[in-house]
Amino acid sequence: MKKHNFYAGPSIMPEFTINKTAEAIKDFEGMGLSLMEISHRSKQFEAVMEDAQQAFKDLLNIPEGYKVLFLGGGASLQFAMIPFNLMQNKSAYLNTGSWATKAIKEAKLFGDVDVVASSEDKTFNYIPEFTIPKDADYFHITTNNTIYGTEIKEDLDSPVPLVADMSSDIFSRPVDVSKYGMIYGGAQKNLAPSGVTFVIVKEDLLGKVDRDIPTMLDYRTHIKKGSMFNTPPVVPVYSALQTLKWLQQNGGVEAMQKVNIEKANLLYDEIQRNKLFKPTVAKEEDRSLMNVCFIMNDEYAELEKEFFEFATNKGMVGIKGHRSVGGFRASLYNALPKESVEALIDTMKEFEAKH
Amino acid sequence: MKKHNFYAGPSIMPEFTINKTAEAIKDFEGMGLSLMEISHRSKQFEAVMEDAQQAFKDLLNIPEGYKVLFLGGGASLQFAMIPFNLMQNKSAYLNTGSWATKAIKEAKLFGDVDVVASSEDKTFNYIPEFTIPKDADYFHITTNNTIYGTEIKEDLDSPVPLVADMSSDIFSRPVDVSKYGMIYGGAQKNLAPSGVTFVIVKEDLLGKVDRDIPTMLDYRTHIKKGSMFNTPPVVPVYSALQTLKWLQQNGGVEAMQKVNIEKANLLYDEIQRNKLFKPTVAKEEDRSLMNVCFIMNDEYAELEKEFFEFATNKGMVGIKGHRSVGGFRASLYNALPKESVEALIDTMKEFEAKH
Repeated sequence: MKKHNFYAGPSIMPEFTINKTAEAIKDFEGMGLSLMEISHRSKQFEAVMEDAQQAFKDLLNIPEGYKVLFLGGGASLQFAMIPFNLMQNKSAYLNTGSWATKAIKEAKLFGDVDVVASSEDKTFNYIPEFTIPKDADYFHITTNNTIYGTEIKEDLDSPVPLVADMSSDIFSRPVDVSKYGMIYGGAQKNLAPSGVTFVIVKEDLLGKVDRDIPTMLDYRTHIKKGSMFNTPPVVPVYSALQTLKWLQQNGGVEAMQKVNIEKANLLYDEIQRNKLFKPTVAKEEDRSLMNVCFIMNDEYAELEKEFFEFATNKGMVGIKGHRSVGGFRASLYNALPKESVEALIDTMKEFEAKH
Repeated sequence: MKKHNFYAGPSIMPEFTINKTAEAIKDFEGMGLSLMEISHRSKQFEAVMEDAQQAFKDLLNIPEGYKVLFLGGGASLQFAMIPFNLMQNKSAYLNTGSWATKAIKEAKLFGDVDVVASSEDKTFNYIPEFTIPKDADYFHITTNNTIYGTEIKEDLDSPVPLVADMSSDIFSRPVDVSKYGMIYGGAQKNLAPSGVTFVIVKEDLLGKVDRDIPTMLDYRTHIKKGSMFNTPPVVPVYSALQTLKWLQQNGGVEAMQKVNIEKANLLYDEIQRNKLFKPTVAKEEDRSLMNVCFIMNDEYAELEKEFFEFATNKGMVGIKGHRSVGGFRASLYNALPKESVEALIDTMKEFEAKH
């Protein structure tokens, strides 16, 4: 049976990326060797790294003065690297969920953290209002909140450098990179298998803090060496390049945004229409295009487990909501075809008809 | 033409690991999904992580009280994590090459570092004599020096916790883990594709320093969550498990050691015998079984480039020595078959006959 992959991350990858990676693991660029066993200093892999950086710049229209890095350790390591590199006296954070909460915790090790607003009072089911303090070294946001299904879908104007965790919505829409000081994220949603973290950083923000920074935690180390200071995660970087090529062949971020809006609207409309379900995020403008969270309507609460099993039997994978929200979550990343959304909607309708 | 892969790292992997990984990238455990697109919280991947930890324990006979971790960021990140977690007042390091030098540099950010000995005076071509200070929080060694071709092939007795970077000789021989406080390394030599770092740490050494440790840099974070605090590098961890299974099916570290000694002896003997070449490491007991470094004899120095091209045309890959040593380096990791060593030796003999 065809599987519809709604995992929140690691999550569905384009067939193109999967096939190209599997081929390269058998034989990389006709070298007679596997991608897994070639030197990262080989000219063939150096080209992969350079091409991936260039494709990032092309797809996101990254202006001069920014560098693209591919690092290990996950976005969670960035939560510490950001204040290590950018926070001299004070930073500001918007708390829209558990990733933001974790980022705030790390920043507090480095000085004064102004949490400008939080939606924790309502299980993070909305994006709160906020004012950005002009005396902060930077302002940090999580643009998409995978667990709670909220998303900041526009590029903010900020009086201080804007730092955005875009782990789960990078490449889902055009981004005006010039409005950001730094954009970063784990690759394992819209880009690559887990194990590589991308960082887009405005170079002139670096080198302004007084503290000693361990070499591997200093962005300047990786800029200087083109992300090859130490052995990079070769397979994930190669897979990322394949997804970037797939994006280029499929109309880039503009085309992705169009389909992503279509897919999300289809599903949110069905959740609203279907008597059994309701969305967890009340305000339409706060709803994520990437992670659609929904629960049973109160009068059908006892059907939750039954719907999960029903949907699983129809080939739906990864639709269980995070334990802190409950219910269901369908992640609609770039690689998820519209047919999978339609299959989920059919499943919801069929289940409704039974009750 | 068959390629003989002598890369220093990333380096040759067992066919078993390559094939299993390629298969899983197509379809993981019959899930109908790629290994690249499944949740790390799926029960199938949780089993991979647990099995990999268990196989480490079984293969290396790891005693109670030690934990096995799989982390991102590379061994270079460990250079900072080690003093972050273990160094209260003073640490001691043996400087046997560029990896040790880098580790020392990071430790100096955290306090007093006693470099007990260094072989830098002779381009690190020997293992120096040393005494371990009894007042150090730990003593750090690099057991195998990929660039210079030296190796500490025995488990030291240390009056303080012994911390060993075994990036390039883990699983090449039996190790008495009880003699170490911590063993760590990048996986990309004897274990897996790049992107995952293993750490074997004695749990009771942790939690003794006063400083705040960022969450991701604190070993206790990863111990508490079984290396799943954040999304682990799924593909590299899966590949590591395949290599661990391959090791188990092929007699474990005892069998590897036997073949590794055989392979290294064959090649060192030929280097000694062949009029064109000489080894860079003078003392036999200091010579690495993993990375055999050799240069042209003085009177044949001008033939270096010609031999490199001759060998390349015979299918030898990755035999160029590191630029700081020059000449040649043949890395003889576990997965390299004896036939490849014999092919290199034949090439050396054939080249000798021409001159």
